Amino acid sequence: MADLSRLRELVVKNEKKIVMVVMDGLGGVPVEPGGMTALELAHTPNLDALAAKGIVGLHEPIGPGITPGSGPSHLALFGYDPFAYEIGRGVLEAVGIDFPLTPNDLAARGNFATVDAEGRITDRRAGRIASEAAAELTARLQAEVRLEGVEVFVAPVREHRFVLVLRGEGLVPALSETDPQALGVPPLPVRPLVPEAARTAELVNEFVRQAARILADAHPANMVLLRGFAKYPTIPSMGEVFGLQPAAIASYPMYRGLAKLVGMTALPTGPALADEFGTLEHAWADYDFFYLHVKKTDSAGEDGDFARKVEVIEHVDSLIPRLVQLRPDVVIVTGDHSTPAPLRSHSWHPVPFLLWAETCRPDGVDSFGERTCARGALGRFPATDIMPLALAHALKLTKFGA
Amino acid sequence: MADLSRLRELVVKNEKKIVMVVMDGLGGVPVEPGGMTALELAHTPNLDALAAKGIVGLHEPIGPGITPGSGPSHLALFGYDPFAYEIGRGVLEAVGIDFPLTPNDLAARGNFATVDAEGRITDRRAGRIASEAAAELTARLQAEVRLEGVEVFVAPVREHRFVLVLRGEGLVPALSETDPQALGVPPLPVRPLVPEAARTAELVNEFVRQAARILADAHPANMVLLRGFAKYPTIPSMGEVFGLQPAAIASYPMYRGLAKLVGMTALPTGPALADEFGTLEHAWADYDFFYLHVKKTDSAGEDGDFARKVEVIEHVDSLIPRLVQLRPDVVIVTGDHSTPAPLRSHSWHPVPFLLWAETCRPDGVDSFGERTCARGALGRFPATDIMPLALAHALKLTKFGA
Repeated sequence: MADLSRLRELVVKNEKKIVMVVMDGLGGVPVEPGGMTALELAHTPNLDALAAKGIVGLHEPIGPGITPGSGPSHLALFGYDPFAYEIGRGVLEAVGIDFPLTPNDLAARGNFATVDAEGRITDRRAGRIASEAAAELTARLQAEVRLEGVEVFVAPVREHRFVLVLRGEGLVPALSETDPQALGVPPLPVRPLVPEAARTAELVNEFVRQAARILADAHPANMVLLRGFAKYPTIPSMGEVFGLQPAAIASYPMYRGLAKLVGMTALPTGPALADEFGTLEHAWADYDFFYLHVKKTDSAGEDGDFARKVEVIEHVDSLIPRLVQLRPDVVIVTGDHSTPAPLRSHSWHPVPFLLWAETCRPDGVDSFGERTCARGALGRFPATDIMPLALAHALKLTKFGA
Repeated sequence: MADLSRLRELVVKNEKKIVMVVMDGLGGVPVEPGGMTALELAHTPNLDALAAKGIVGLHEPIGPGITPGSGPSHLALFGYDPFAYEIGRGVLEAVGIDFPLTPNDLAARGNFATVDAEGRITDRRAGRIASEAAAELTARLQAEVRLEGVEVFVAPVREHRFVLVLRGEGLVPALSETDPQALGVPPLPVRPLVPEAARTAELVNEFVRQAARILADAHPANMVLLRGFAKYPTIPSMGEVFGLQPAAIASYPMYRGLAKLVGMTALPTGPALADEFGTLEHAWADYDFFYLHVKKTDSAGEDGDFARKVEVIEHVDSLIPRLVQLRPDVVIVTGDHSTPAPLRSHSWHPVPFLLWAETCRPDGVDSFGERTCARGALGRFPATDIMPLALAHALKLTKFGA
């Protein structure tokens, strides 16, 4: 039932509330053969209690063997087929710095780069120029570039990276990239990959010409490279599809941005995990779906810091009673993908999942970990099943057929 | 393998017999957290013995989170994709009263209603007129209405409800409904939703005009409302698709009707469960697939009567030896959906399933219940897999590819 149009016909509205806690990169593997994962080792009495009364399983964010990026894995958690709704790299980069994208926007990832007197690239990252210096240069571009018929936004990301956004009617993202991914050659001109993209290609090429002139004295950042052209995706909102009033509680901009793409209200919150739970309490009356994002499980995994991942999980567990006290109707705790500390990266391993509601048929599993979830009632299942299950347990779906 | 055309190519005929016992609404949830379901609590030594020698799992009639109606859930049990073959509400209503539908028929659900002197609806159910009175009025309509080029049938259902059937060539069910679902306004004329439905719309409007005249003196039942227009569905028969000679044993008309829609012979049977098993014994030589329907598990669930659901399950268990004595080649025992007594309604919870055959690879599960099925060899699986599995264990499917 990843067919949203069929699901939409079954949706009924009620007052029941769903909370989805996403511990980024939650899934893991043991450091040593036969050992425990971070989640298994962590002392999590509150999550274990939810698992005992609820149902557990392991979800596949994209599919067996597929390591997800954060964009598609979150889309799947939110109920959207990640193959049907792709979020381009330029858009993800813009979303990641909280740039207020609108549906008319075309975004690209930009690098400051170094070219020699003949215009040949000598450093694709401009010596990883400092963020402050890069911000001055993006401000200069923002102030001086003028393109016919479109608004231009140039916003810094970090070090040599920036985002270019063109805003206007009729922009088409089917464009080749300017970064030749090689040294000793000049940047490539942008070519339209479909005839309708010809005007957009000309606008981007004009941006590069003006940028080269404006940056001529800014060695080593005397050139720009552009790639990942993408239009703002048209994704039906969670309000339209699921009849929900959804809110996102996430301290990192990229996750707020992803949530906004599916129509969530991104609530202001503080940097600490306890701030996020405070925001949940504060906004409790105003929404019926809450996505609460925990970043630091993933960061610990990416850093290869197994012990810190255990600590973050235990910290989340210690805050669960504050959530339970709100008397939610459906509680989901899971991750968007696995980030095993031994691998120091996202991975393809399926992700521990628990759902608690009064309507659960218990499955005899009483702790929350990779191995226990593998024996749960849900087994291994696609992440796109999560929203239909959440809605069902919140009694927000009517019968299919008579 | 819900692709029936692929499956059909593999079918081979033999003498082996398959019995599918469907306990309607079998699946449940515990009354109290940590408690047992009705099936888990019931003493079922005969079903447990089958489970011990066979394979078990939990099937999803439609999909995760989706609460099925009886129509689509039975289609899935019978091997048909419930999204590809939808049974409209009018047809289901006609089937439910054992009306002998034919492929040329268009059926609608009718209500007797009350209108005032200005023709505005004052009661959409005509004061829930008694069934006997309604039967007199449907007889009057049946005797007096005349439509050009089509036969008309008006059959009572219960209280204010009746079925209208038009029989003729070229009827098209894409019609708007006449029931405005509101009081103080007149019934709506039927509009064709596609151009090809124009003639059908005119016929239905003419029916309503004649009915209003005929019922003018029949206050409070002085008007009719019509909705759920549906054509007899064209579903390839189980004979065509699976090479079976199938028979249905069901005391409730709706289930006989559903079985007839897929080409089963509906055998006459008595109202008691033992009657149904008697019919099975009696007809044993003449068919190679038997669908035996048990209604009372669902009724108990709908009534919220947990103890009665346990009793019905135990009664079914006590009759299983009569089935085993017939030496069937494949025995399936399952439900069409869950009807947990605590929820008093159909639900989305996956449904306990067991399959016994000589060819089973036992899965170490030796009792038949929701939690044991969750640990079975089949795991959680789509209901449309059931017929291919049944055919395989009856050695009625040849190899795919060389």
